[in-house]
Order: sequence, then structure tokens, then C-alpha cells
Amino acid sequence: MLKTAFIERQLPHGVADLYFEDAARKTRAENILRETFARASYSEVIPPTFEYYEALAAEASPQVREEIYRFPDRDGRMLALRADPTIPIARLISTKLFDRPLPLRLFYIANVFRHEEPKASLRREFTQAGVELIGAGTPQADAEVIALTVNSLRAVGLQEFRVRLGAMDILNALLEPLGLNETQFELVKSALERKNERALNDLLRDAPMTAETRRALAALPTLAGGGEILPRARRECAINDGARAALERMQTLWNFLDVLGVSEAITLDLGMVRGMAYYTGIVFEGFARGIGFSILSGGRYDKLLAHFGNALPACGFAIGVERVLAALHLQSGDAISLAPEIIAEMGSANVAQRVAEKRAQGVRVEWYLQNGTRAEILGSARERGARAVWFNDGSVEEFA
Amino acid sequence: MLKTAFIERQLPHGVADLYFEDAARKTRAENILRETFARASYSEVIPPTFEYYEALAAEASPQVREEIYRFPDRDGRMLALRADPTIPIARLISTKLFDRPLPLRLFYIANVFRHEEPKASLRREFTQAGVELIGAGTPQADAEVIALTVNSLRAVGLQEFRVRLGAMDILNALLEPLGLNETQFELVKSALERKNERALNDLLRDAPMTAETRRALAALPTLAGGGEILPRARRECAINDGARAALERMQTLWNFLDVLGVSEAITLDLGMVRGMAYYTGIVFEGFARGIGFSILSGGRYDKLLAHFGNALPACGFAIGVERVLAALHLQSGDAISLAPEIIAEMGSANVAQRVAEKRAQGVRVEWYLQNGTRAEILGSARERGARAVWFNDGSVEEFA
Repeated sequence: MLKTAFIERQLPHGVADLYFEDAARKTRAENILRETFARASYSEVIPPTFEYYEALAAEASPQVREEIYRFPDRDGRMLALRADPTIPIARLISTKLFDRPLPLRLFYIANVFRHEEPKASLRREFTQAGVELIGAGTPQADAEVIALTVNSLRAVGLQEFRVRLGAMDILNALLEPLGLNETQFELVKSALERKNERALNDLLRDAPMTAETRRALAALPTLAGGGEILPRARRECAINDGARAALERMQTLWNFLDVLGVSEAITLDLGMVRGMAYYTGIVFEGFARGIGFSILSGGRYDKLLAHFGNALPACGFAIGVERVLAALHLQSGDAISLAPEIIAEMGSANVAQRVAEKRAQGVRVEWYLQNGTRAEILGSARERGARAVWFNDGSVEEFA
Repeated sequence: MLKTAFIERQLPHGVADLYFEDAARKTRAENILRETFARASYSEVIPPTFEYYEALAAEASPQVREEIYRFPDRDGRMLALRADPTIPIARLISTKLFDRPLPLRLFYIANVFRHEEPKASLRREFTQAGVELIGAGTPQADAEVIALTVNSLRAVGLQEFRVRLGAMDILNALLEPLGLNETQFELVKSALERKNERALNDLLRDAPMTAETRRALAALPTLAGGGEILPRARRECAINDGARAALERMQTLWNFLDVLGVSEAITLDLGMVRGMAYYTGIVFEGFARGIGFSILSGGRYDKLLAHFGNALPACGFAIGVERVLAALHLQSGDAISLAPEIIAEMGSANVAQRVAEKRAQGVRVEWYLQNGTRAEILGSARERGARAVWFNDGSVEEFA
């Protein structure tokens, strides 16, 4: 074998080894998310780690496309590591699940790969856990997905978090009659997102619109809070049929969120817009105390699946698993112990039977693997953090 | 966005989408393995999916090195997808875990990637679940690892399987005095593995050895069965100190396996040799009814870690998760249902509370997402395979 030089033992930027408590925390959180999704009747999908580059790149945003890792297969075709779970799942739906009864409830827990410019903190391999609710376009469907978001974060043990909820359909209804071109549209959204009222006014100054529309647009960034903002939103923004319908839908959704017991975790923000152009209804992001970027994002994207040949309404979210783990750590919600509870001497069928029973109850039991004296076994057990030692002669020692 | 042509929706050879029951079966088996390993006091390690090619290739066998997927990083260095969990873990031990108390008990559940020549049935992405017990060289350590192998297969529900157990140290002790060159050594091992007595005799005819050695080597392929073969093995093969020690060790190991309640799943086969050159003691493979190739392999490799700068004894195994799933399917041990047990109408805080309680008990509960009549809701619930419907008015309908 070749000699392994020191440099070969280092890892590339943006990837990491996880081990011991950190690995256990990650799989624990993933399994809690998996159970939470499954109990809400979602079914897991596991796309391959790599597939044809063209399939992944065709529907990716230009930014993501730029960041895809790719490499040639032996037959010369280009392969790529998945950079996003949504595109493989859309492909899966259109090729293999198109004849299943609707709605389809899918979830994934998938590592994804993106090559970004080197910055110290960026990961190039990270894990997303999320759901896609396909074929249901009602406010109930929105409510199910948002409630699942909140309940997922609660289930993993996150204490202090908020989900910020907006609705692209309200903004779109207000902007549509103005006939803005795409650039102007994006500038308006960007001014709204930054709650930059002056920039917004500058942009809209010369656009032909009624004073009512101007007031409605100016009001949007101020409409943030709980359900109590919705009556004022109707007064100030329901200036056309589209905006009225979107606001009524938001009221219905809010009522469902209230019934589902999650509204206290949610801040409505009608001035909220999201970078992704494909959202057509609700949009939301999650934030946790101590983490300076969103820990999840989601929304309704009723037009996305049409690109794959299925015009189906769809709503979903993706949680950044590493970000949630970082938030849990800051909020001291991630205690874990890998110390064995019991050390057992090997050689007695009786002890072996009791070891099997304890393990079946979920207890970590470790075999002592040497031929030691009683004192040596006890010393080793203390060093390993065990609380009890089981000896072959049937005796037991417990530590305080 | 670009138009997605049909060809782009196909997957490359050797990778697959898993979904619904198949995905649930895989994560269920993985989680049972994870729990089984953790309860035996093993701790999870999660190496990155890709790292530097030189690091992965340096210690790989020539065959595996040939099969590694590689691609350039933006800085020009070559990256590679992991092709084997053992090499990243050896790197991890030598760079980050070298100062931890021994023994180290590590486990992994990792997908790996190998580019093989196109054959219909070969996977290029598959999952291995295994353990490494580092820093313990006793028969107790061997027994722990073999028992964990058997208990893992039992835990996932496999009924009909056997672990075939051999010991490279017995064979090595017999062959060592003959001074065979490496090629002859490999030919003898190959003849033994194929239980080809004539080839074995031909190979050994001209080697200078005593009649006793010749008899011992000829006996090896016939020494297969339970613990009852060990007395005969001692009579026929304990012809030098090395062979005597190795056979005594095997007897000690067998006694431990008996005590641990796993010996009935094991077939001793002293003529067994394994392809991997790095095994130094026990070697074993698992087989399940209906599957024509091994579902797991393992053994002791006390010299491997020295290549990474740590001369530590080590023993471990790797289970082929997809192969075990195939065996479970053939043995009808993989029933699973993804149908919701309950369909609930959305809109009542009372129903929502009961839904939360049921889900906390692990039950799949699905929201009905339309504004349907009672008859429509019942019809939908039957179609989805539910056993009960909960209505907003508090009433409940159950199906036979």
C-alpha cells in the first residue's frame, strides 16, 4: 500500500466528520423528524445521491446550477451530486408516482452538495429534512404544512423559535395591475423585503397607480404580528378581487392554525417576500434564538411541478438540520450521554441473559473484554462512566 | 427554465429511487441496526460523503481504487466519493480519536459508491452498516463482534441465516514454516476456499513439508460444523505452537459464543479463507436463505490501522443493507403499512387535540384537506385505507 502523507488526512473545505455525541445528536434529530412526518401520514422518499447532470440542472435556479458538483460517468455522460431534494422528487413524481391517489404526502431527509465560493463557515455537504404535500391547494393544506413545521421543531426540542409567514398572492394581486416588468417587480419585492419604505416609494413614484394601491403597498411592510393584523390588512389592502380573495384565504388559514395550536409560534408578515421566484401563495421561514439565518423555509409553489409535466398544487418546507442542531446547542437542548450504564463480565450464561434483557429495554451495556481482577474491572467501569458492574459470579456492584 | 426532455428523467445505471414501503423498510432496518449497535455501547461516526481522492485511494485495494468515483475540486485537487467506510474511519481514528480511551467502539451506517463494469444487477450506490471494535485483541472481543453480528440480523427480523466462521491464524500458522512465496500462498488459499483437494495436493506436492503438515492442511477443508469439530481440529492440526495457540483461542471463542446464545447461528469452517489479505485472525461471512451472495462480512485485522500510524488490534463487520432487505423480503419478514389509521376533519380544537395525542402514541393520522360532505369524507377515508374518521362535530365512524 502507498504511504499516507499527513496532507492526505485533512478534509476538503466544507465537509466534516461527525462522531460520538455530535453524530448521535444528528441521527436523534433526524429520527424525531422522520417519526413526526410519518405520524402526519407522510411517506419517505430516498432519491439517489447522484444522477444525470442534465436532469438536476435543467430545473435548478442559475445560482444552484452553478454550484452543482459534477463528474463524468464512464460512458461520457455527465453525472452530478444532488444539490436540492426538490428536483429529484419532482422527477420521481413525474416518472413513477403520477398515477397515485392525491394528495401525495412525501418527506425526505437528504444530504445535499453545493460548491460555493470558499468562506470559512459554509458547508458543502449539509442535510435537509422536509415534506412535499402534492395535489392539495386548500387553506387546510397550507395549515397542515405550517403546523407540521412548528410541530417538527417542537418535537426535536427547540424552545425558542418563530415562523414568519407571508403570502405572495397578496403582493402579486396588488402588483399585477401595475404592469411592472420583471426587473421592476424584483426591485419592488427587494425593497419590501428590506422594509425600505423610501426605496419602495422611489420605485413606485412614477408607476401609474391609484392612491389606494399606493397606500396598500405602503401598508404591507407594516402589517406584521398575530391574527389581529388581518382586519386592518383587509381595510387597507383588499382593493381588488385578487387581494380580497388572498386576504380571506389568509384569515381562513390563520383560523386553522389557531385550532391546530400553532398560531402562537407564528408571526404574520404580509410584507414578507422570498428570494425564490416560484412561490405562488404562502411563504414562510423559521428563525431560532441565537442563529442569524433562517433554520427552515417553505411555501406554496403551485406552478413548479408543471415544469415536470404535472400541473399540481404543491406546498412544502425544508429544514436545515445542521442549523437546527446549532440552535438546539445554543438553547442547551441537546444533552446526550454515550457512557454505558452497565459493564458486564463475559463468561456466564446468566449474565449474558440479563445483558440481552437490559439491551432490549434500550440500555447501553458494555462487555468487559479482558481477563481482569475484580478491582481491575471496577476501575475500568468507573473510567468508562458506568453506573453498575455485573460479574460472572452473579454479584453486582453499583456506583453512587 | 429549460425544457426537461424525457431522457433526462431516467436514472443512471446502478442507482435507484426508493419510496413508500421500500424507503420505510430501509430506514426501519437501519434504525434497528443503529439501536442494536448503540445498546452494545457503540457510538456512531458519520464521515463526509466525499473527501480528497488521495486519502481514500492510498489505502484502498487496487480493485476498489479502480472503482472510486472522482472529480476535481475548484482548486484543482481531486475529490472522491467514499467507496468503503473503513478507510474514512481509519483516517478519523488516526487524526481525531487517537487519544480516546480504548477500546473504541464505533459504528456507521453509510452509503458508498463504486463504479463497476455495467452488469444488470450491480448497484453503484449501496449502504453498509457495520462496527469497528478498536484496541481489544482478546477472544472476548471476537465474541462480542460475532454476537453483535448475529443479534443484528435477528433484530431486523431475519429468520433463516448462518454465519460462517473461520480463522486465518490457524491457516497462517500451518503455512508459515513452508516458506511459500506470495503467489503460492494465494494459490493455496484459493484451493482451500474452493475446497479443491486435488488442486491443493498438486500445489503442496513439491513443497518441503512433513507428512504431519500435509495431513493438517488436507484436514482443514473437512473441519466444518459446530463446536464438536474443535477436538478433532486439535488432534489433526495443532502441529506447531502457532497452530496450537490459534486453535485454543478458537475453542475459547466458541465457549463465549455459546454463553452469548449465538453459537447455533454459526458454522465453523476452518478451511475458510477470505479474499481480503488484511485479516489476521477470525474471518466470517453471513448468508441468508434465498440470497446467493454473502449479506455481511467481517473479521479481525490487527495490522490495518498501522498503515494509518496506529498499531491497534481491530475487529469488525459490515452488513450489506440492501442484501439484508432482499433476504427479509424473500423470507416474508418485511410487511409494512403506510395507510393512515385515522382521517380527521380539520377545524375543531377538540379533534386537533386528539390528533396530537394519537400521533404522540405513534399512530399515523391524516388530515382531510377539502370542504367535503360527510359522505365524501367517508369515501375518501375508505380509499386511503383508514380504519376510522373523526369529524369536527365530535362524531366518529369506524370501519370493520
